[in-house]
Amino acid sequence: MKKIAVFPGSFDPITKGHESLVRRAMPLFDEIIIAIGHNADKQSYFPLKKRLEWLAIVFKDMPKVKIESYSGLTVDFCLKNNANFILRGLRTSADFEFERRVGQVNKYMNQKLETIFLLSSVEDTPVNSSVVREIHKYGGNIGPFIPRSVVKLIQNWQ
Amino acid sequence: MKKIAVFPGSFDPITKGHESLVRRAMPLFDEIIIAIGHNADKQSYFPLKKRLEWLAIVFKDMPKVKIESYSGLTVDFCLKNNANFILRGLRTSADFEFERRVGQVNKYMNQKLETIFLLSSVEDTPVNSSVVREIHKYGGNIGPFIPRSVVKLIQNWQ
Amino acid sequence: MKKIAVFPGSFDPITKGHESLVRRAMPLFDEIIIAIGHNADKQSYFPLKKRLEWLAIVFKDMPKVKIESYSGLTVDFCLKNNANFILRGLRTSADFEFERRVGQVNKYMNQKLETIFLLSSVEDTPVNSSVVREIHKYGGNIGPFIPRSVVKLIQNWQ
Amino acid sequence: MKKIAVFPGSFDPITKGHESLVRRAMPLFDEIIIAIGHNADKQSYFPLKKRLEWLAIVFKDMPKVKIESYSGLTVDFCLKNNANFILRGLRTSADFEFERRVGQVNKYMNQKLETIFLLSSVEDTPVNSSVVREIHKYGGNIGPFIPRSVVKLIQNWQ
Amino acid sequence: MKKIAVFPGSFDPITKGHESLVRRAMPLFDEIIIAIGHNADKQSYFPLKKRLEWLAIVFKDMPKVKIESYSGLTVDFCLKNNANFILRGLRTSADFEFERRVGQVNKYMNQKLETIFLLSSVEDTPVNSSVVREIHKYGGNIGPFIPRSVVKLIQNWQ
Amino acid sequence: MKKIAVFPGSFDPITKGHESLVRRAMPLFDEIIIAIGHNADKQSYFPLKKRLEWLAIVFKDMPKVKIESYSGLTVDFCLKNNANFILRGLRTSADFEFERRVGQVNKYMNQKLETIFLLSSVEDTPVNSSVVREIHKYGGNIGPFIPRSVVKLIQNWQ
Repeated sequence: MKKIAVFPGSFDPITKGHESLVRRAMPLFDEIIIAIGHNADKQSYFPLKKRLEWLAIVFKDMPKVKIESYSGLTVDFCLKNNANFILRGLRTSADFEFERRVGQVNKYMNQKLETIFLLSSVEDTPVNSSVVREIHKYGGNIGPFIPRSVVKLIQNWQ
Repeated sequence: MKKIAVFPGSFDPITKGHESLVRRAMPLFDEIIIAIGHNADKQSYFPLKKRLEWLAIVFKDMPKVKIESYSGLTVDFCLKNNANFILRGLRTSADFEFERRVGQVNKYMNQKLETIFLLSSVEDTPVNSSVVREIHKYGGNIGPFIPRSVVKLIQNWQ
Repeated sequence: MKKIAVFPGSFDPITKGHESLVRRAMPLFDEIIIAIGHNADKQSYFPLKKRLEWLAIVFKDMPKVKIESYSGLTVDFCLKNNANFILRGLRTSADFEFERRVGQVNKYMNQKLETIFLLSSVEDTPVNSSVVREIHKYGGNIGPFIPRSVVKLIQNWQ
Repeated sequence: MKKIAVFPGSFDPITKGHESLVRRAMPLFDEIIIAIGHNADKQSYFPLKKRLEWLAIVFKDMPKVKIESYSGLTVDFCLKNNANFILRGLRTSADFEFERRVGQVNKYMNQKLETIFLLSSVEDTPVNSSVVREIHKYGGNIGPFIPRSVVKLIQNWQ
Repeated sequence: MKKIAVFPGSFDPITKGHESLVRRAMPLFDEIIIAIGHNADKQSYFPLKKRLEWLAIVFKDMPKVKIESYSGLTVDFCLKNNANFILRGLRTSADFEFERRVGQVNKYMNQKLETIFLLSSVEDTPVNSSVVREIHKYGGNIGPFIPRSVVKLIQNWQ
Repeated sequence: MKKIAVFPGSFDPITKGHESLVRRAMPLFDEIIIAIGHNADKQSYFPLKKRLEWLAIVFKDMPKVKIESYSGLTVDFCLKNNANFILRGLRTSADFEFERRVGQVNKYMNQKLETIFLLSSVEDTPVNSSVVREIHKYGGNIGPFIPRSVVKLIQNWQ
């Protein structure tokens, strides 16, 4: 059976941590679907279309990575895509408490769905998208936190 | 390249949580080596020989699972066995803080070594080997915490 | 003196975890008042009237359980109802940090008010109302998380 | 049915935190058994006989408090004493992770056994017996951490 | 070189914890700038003008304390004010996880900027501004949580 | 008044994290006393004499750093050395819970003693002395975790 993992998130915007995670997880899977969950009620900082574009640029060298968006429950998206794995990164113990809840609830909804966690890299541990948005908003330099190929695109977006 | 994972631990004794973890992780790998780390200085509760036997019984239906023991550093054991992955379970945020340290230090020692985490099952979250030892020591019933095939063997060991 | 406990919350909606908590705590008290705190500023997902109805259905077999709503400070509500105890459940260490703050601040405001904590049941530990709302919103099955007697009522509410 | 709680611990030595907990929990129960768990393998700092004496002095004004010692599993001690409740205090989130494990495992062993938690008082939150032992060992002043009636007895013990 | 620390926050409103922190940190620095970060998007509970006034009253006996407001990134405000230190308090492990992220990200943006942490006092550990706002909103007594010199001013503000 | 800080620890052995902490904290103080607490009961991995030597080598370029050892309570050592500050590093939230206890208890014993915390550097966050001892014991490469000037001395010690 093909090993397909969904990496769900808002990627608002993608960080070096996200990129590193996908590259390190790739050897485990036949396909990784990076899936931007979007939701009519919740406003994002960067528009969905841009976030999809930036993901496509960062992973253009990886044919086994697909970029998609979805609304609704992650478990339903996985089912529709024949994915038996959810991929997530762990930075802090606050992350962990949240992820455990989500992972265990997803199991209640679909016994076959396994969440696979990788650690953030040491140097990416303090970084998340919300930090990047805050810095971008005030015109600070987001370079240290963003994949090289999209730094300029994201920095200059307004 | 063959996907080999090492699942290191003391398995003193194996719990339902360990068993569940290996069964759920199996689809990701070509081989899982359950590796009992032992150490001249640290005393175990159950002897190494018994712990190896019990693991062999629990996983006898899984030909892709190997049971071994080692002393020394886990990174060296992985290298020797051509394993690029370490498999670990996460129950609590205290676990997480410990595992993050170990996982990130192992990366400093071997950049290619990736630690893969799965969550404990909901019902196994409060259980660990140390709880089982405490109950065994005072003659309590360890049945709810131990794989069925070895409950009697472990309960009656003295 | 009568032992009265207030179990404050938003119960938006009631979960199996809430039900289990009240049933397990009942032997300790002469009366438990389940009290929905509501607040003109904060919007709930389910309307107050429905949340009160569902609580009444779940606990209709327990004459010592009262269902009420209040606005304002919990300490004031307790005082008005001659309650010396606040009842709360604990699932995760993130819960705990929050509850400790609230419990210790309530003590500063009323020295006689004691908060009594029970653990969530193992199988309910990952579940909270916010998870249930998320699933309900996208039409998922909330059955595993909700007291049996109100599953249909809540599932079909819109 | 009589409401009996067991408050298990090593009380090596009793602290202000322990005393406060018992006094605040007393209104909930008909009887509280303070039970020193002892264990041939683990060495205590103060001898069992002294620890029992000091507890008896601190609670001599509370006829509903009994002082006992036991070895073996706490669940067995509760059963033998017809106690349906275990009483424990919570100071920190590290405490909580440990207590959750113990409380949930005890439930696996005896479904009727409920663990009841109270928060440490604000001023006692940083204090535990191990801190007191460290200070005592080097002749420091343990007065701020110990019930008044036994400060001199414990300070001068050697 | 002059040792200047910035103590950034929203001080919405100032608490006893903030006051204690500044008084205890003062011996380390030549100047402490208490800096209210404000932000067109985020609404505060108390108006900026009032928050600045209350800070000025509380610290009027401390000539080395300056009160300012800023918008934008804290690292930029520090640079503009020749401050090499950021001062922050730590109450809980949830605080710590948040502060570590912010502190380490600030370091990525300015290698010379060091964040200095002091512990909250034991009695102030459960208190934060959000608790005070909640109590104020419902007309409760905020006296135990607020510096004496401004209790009435804040309590009566509406 | 001279600003003297004590940095207590076992430094068994010194890590890059310790070195970084002292160098970053130096601008705040007139003198930092690195103080190895030793204790007849507790066995160290490296002998006290070696640990003192290695500290002296690492900080030989910093005349304001003193290296000492002590037994007994840290608060007493501070008093004897006219130190009003204790310096400590924070890596993880488990660290934080421990340090808060120690810091707040020290305050109970000496109101004037303030503990000052700095964050570990991002790259040193996963490292502690116990990890280094484990690696050393099995002949692994401790180079990434140890100040350059003493790597060989520590690696080759036996």
